[in-house]
Amino acid sequence: MTIQAVVFDAYGTLYDIQSVAAITEEAFPGYGEIITQIWRIKQLEYTWFRSLMRRYEDFSVITKDSLAYTIRVLGLKHDAATFERIMDKYLHLDLYPDARATLAALKGKKLAILSNGSSGMLNALVQNTGLERVLDATISIDSQKIFKPAPDAYALIEARLGVRPAEVLFVSSNPWDACGAKAFGLNVAWIERVTPEAMALACVESDVVAPLTMFKAIRTQMDELGVVPDYRIHGLSELPDLLK
Amino acid sequence: MTIQAVVFDAYGTLYDIQSVAAITEEAFPGYGEIITQIWRIKQLEYTWFRSLMRRYEDFSVITKDSLAYTIRVLGLKHDAATFERIMDKYLHLDLYPDARATLAALKGKKLAILSNGSSGMLNALVQNTGLERVLDATISIDSQKIFKPAPDAYALIEARLGVRPAEVLFVSSNPWDACGAKAFGLNVAWIERVTPEAMALACVESDVVAPLTMFKAIRTQMDELGVVPDYRIHGLSELPDLLK
Repeated sequence: MTIQAVVFDAYGTLYDIQSVAAITEEAFPGYGEIITQIWRIKQLEYTWFRSLMRRYEDFSVITKDSLAYTIRVLGLKHDAATFERIMDKYLHLDLYPDARATLAALKGKKLAILSNGSSGMLNALVQNTGLERVLDATISIDSQKIFKPAPDAYALIEARLGVRPAEVLFVSSNPWDACGAKAFGLNVAWIERVTPEAMALACVESDVVAPLTMFKAIRTQMDELGVVPDYRIHGLSELPDLLK
Repeated sequence: MTIQAVVFDAYGTLYDIQSVAAITEEAFPGYGEIITQIWRIKQLEYTWFRSLMRRYEDFSVITKDSLAYTIRVLGLKHDAATFERIMDKYLHLDLYPDARATLAALKGKKLAILSNGSSGMLNALVQNTGLERVLDATISIDSQKIFKPAPDAYALIEARLGVRPAEVLFVSSNPWDACGAKAFGLNVAWIERVTPEAMALACVESDVVAPLTMFKAIRTQMDELGVVPDYRIHGLSELPDLLK
């Protein structure tokens, strides 16, 4: 591979969105996990619906709307301060443990984020976690007003970095994102965070399938979309060897 | 209202997609319900992903791909005959109990289906359930090669029936479909099949939230998409009074 640039998805790839669960559990005891699951599903759905409906709103609006949906359907009540405290965590998400070392080891390549997040959310998150020193660009899809997996979103990489798709490695743990990037023509490494064996085991072990298992079943396994990522890895730390 | 045409979504609105569960349970004892839930979620997602990726395949392909995904992630094995038996049920879904009487009571209006289903699937389903005698048209989005909630899909109503959006009542139980139709400019009646009270109760009552509850939480409640349907009804049988 003659890879000039490595471009990362943000939410779920460099940043662990499940790190919101401690805050939601504190705010709504007993509901912390299911809130994060439903919130994430609806957040993603709203990006797709609004793209298809041609009613774009940026990711900060969508993230609020999907949290409001989640609290409402669970029959919970919230005050403005609680809502803001949960939302604020999105600007201070935890990095995956191997993120910093991986980015350091990839020095010499152009490094960037391409995310559905709004510029405001992404810049705050990158600054709060100190990644602005190692990234060459933090690219939000918001200039295109359409979300991934639309081709227009992935086209921003070449427009912003000046690197052709064939020389870009795009990294995502989201199967639909990996497929969208591959369909567009990027080289793609998909991070399989839950193995098929672990997934099947979770279903066998539970009499009633818990929401986390349901979530894993619909969010973590490679989709059937007629495209296949080039590489299947199990963590960010595998990237430096892959690029040697 | 000067409504000239009443146009129905098919899957989940006139036809009960949960009627697949008896077949999936027979094929995979203990997994019947979770299969139908994951299958439906992925089926819908694949329509949105492929629309956004500009990799259209028709609904029969998507329905097969999403069933294959579901069986795989649950760690199950299937033979071709079992797979075909489950797929075949999609051509023989049960009508909701109030569907026939409602359509009969609406005689005098133009009556049609607008569905994500392929022409082949829809025509078979309509024939197998005897609805071809009461419907003026069965409209598949497949001529547009993009799925609902894209505006191009809803535009087919005027193109096929010759009735302007302002004179059409579109009926769907799917919140994203009701919102897409409203954003396009149709009059919309949304069928709320699970009340907010029932939804909240299901979450309180279950220690572990079962997959059916999780599914209800993400599929049955009105979404936060900046548009609101004109009418909220609780079954097809309310339509004749609504149109008086």
